[in-house]
Amino acid sequence: MAGYDTVAIVGVGLIGGSIGRALRERNLARQVVGIGRRESSLEAARRVGAFDRGTIDLAEGAKDAELVVVATPVGTIVDTVLAVAQASSRAIITDAGSTKAEICRLVRSAAISRDRPVPLSGRFVGSHPLAGDHRTGPQFARADLLDRRTVVVTPEDDTPPNLVEYVEAFWRSLGAKVVLMPPEEHDRALAATSHLPHLVAAALAAATPQRWLPLAATGWADTTRIAASDPLLWSQIFAQNRESVLDALGQFEQRLEGLKNALNRDDAADLITRLQEAKGIRDALGD
Amino acid sequence: MAGYDTVAIVGVGLIGGSIGRALRERNLARQVVGIGRRESSLEAARRVGAFDRGTIDLAEGAKDAELVVVATPVGTIVDTVLAVAQASSRAIITDAGSTKAEICRLVRSAAISRDRPVPLSGRFVGSHPLAGDHRTGPQFARADLLDRRTVVVTPEDDTPPNLVEYVEAFWRSLGAKVVLMPPEEHDRALAATSHLPHLVAAALAAATPQRWLPLAATGWADTTRIAASDPLLWSQIFAQNRESVLDALGQFEQRLEGLKNALNRDDAADLITRLQEAKGIRDALGD
Repeated sequence: MAGYDTVAIVGVGLIGGSIGRALRERNLARQVVGIGRRESSLEAARRVGAFDRGTIDLAEGAKDAELVVVATPVGTIVDTVLAVAQASSRAIITDAGSTKAEICRLVRSAAISRDRPVPLSGRFVGSHPLAGDHRTGPQFARADLLDRRTVVVTPEDDTPPNLVEYVEAFWRSLGAKVVLMPPEEHDRALAATSHLPHLVAAALAAATPQRWLPLAATGWADTTRIAASDPLLWSQIFAQNRESVLDALGQFEQRLEGLKNALNRDDAADLITRLQEAKGIRDALGD
Repeated sequence: MAGYDTVAIVGVGLIGGSIGRALRERNLARQVVGIGRRESSLEAARRVGAFDRGTIDLAEGAKDAELVVVATPVGTIVDTVLAVAQASSRAIITDAGSTKAEICRLVRSAAISRDRPVPLSGRFVGSHPLAGDHRTGPQFARADLLDRRTVVVTPEDDTPPNLVEYVEAFWRSLGAKVVLMPPEEHDRALAATSHLPHLVAAALAAATPQRWLPLAATGWADTTRIAASDPLLWSQIFAQNRESVLDALGQFEQRLEGLKNALNRDDAADLITRLQEAKGIRDALGD
């Protein structure tokens, strides 16, 4: 048992709501505070039991927390972390964003700024729970969303080891496995394993003539599932990790070109070799 | 109850084995004959109850059947259909191949050949059950594989209506819905809804550095699942539908280029519009 006192979650959608439900069902904190932007989204999260107390006042909700998890869309994470740091001088802060390099860089700049440094030193380390879904909103939140999933925690060179340990222990208390990785490496890896697949799934869905959808079977459904993800959330993720996504896209285009050339030349042997290589990598993951 | 006498299935893998199991569990035929190329594959299909009687002798297995379903890899379907037609002068014949235009064209040529016409007239119409899987082999065969799935039946201009009705009724007796479509239109549609997704999934899997696989979550797993399909089977499907697959690939490349340009220009509004269009098509299918 971690035995937290107050944990505050800013943004109680799918991820934030699931963290809240897990904390409560596992009885890990004395109090879970849910902080939302609108009463309406708080209400939906309240209905699924995402927190003990809800508020739309960030400063008030964060001020007594020992840990604040920022689970807002990536485009608003930095501002939210800085606001939390101003509201509470002692809370440990982490986030749940799908990109890490830009967020960690901007938070760090604010902390070491000469003009008006935000009192953040040694209190923030980034996190990314690999447990998203193409559905968003607290109505899909589940207490076991993180169970046996991986959370990447992204310390920088000067992040205190005890802060990293604290945040690692937090994610583990929810049932997750933790992987440590610098923010920039995280973004390169996730460009390949998450952001590129979203881009490709979107292109594939968009390229399908609607009149032929009745002929779409499991293969199409699986391959395009994440094209149903929230366009606004994902445009922010792509924008925050543009360089790495474009690099990963370049790798993909090369592979696709290779398959296309083999098909164009009717070169069955080459086609089979390329399909086998792909199958080998896919099989390495398992179902 | 359709009340078939003897139904023979050539090729008792995932599809053929599932058809056999469905016929038997629904008690639709007096006898289901499974025809395999090797005793070993017959044995695996026998273990899951795919047929009443198994044989590796095609002519012997087909000669007394009223209906023969050819469920072999697409590259061998035409030869198998012609061999069945030679072995039995009365059996209705259909297939379960993922491509239709080339198969139907070659079968038809053989039937109307001036030299040595194969006695096939009015006995063959093509089918494609949209119920594949990335796994192959009779061990994955299920009696409900076709239940509520779509089977495309592809009559040509001179296919007798009563033949089409007979084959439609057969698939419906297994629980499937039937869609009628000319072979060429089937191939254009399936290029977009099935063959292109397989090509794209393969390129995506192959482009993923193996060291980052531990960071692959549900999105990557879904998007690349069909990259685990059998390379040999799929190289045959691509080869048989080359033109349409290359056309569909061209459509995909255009969409991907549009997304890439929006990302390159950091044009959030354009990116969101494109992601919304993709989401609209994906949402139209449902989960």
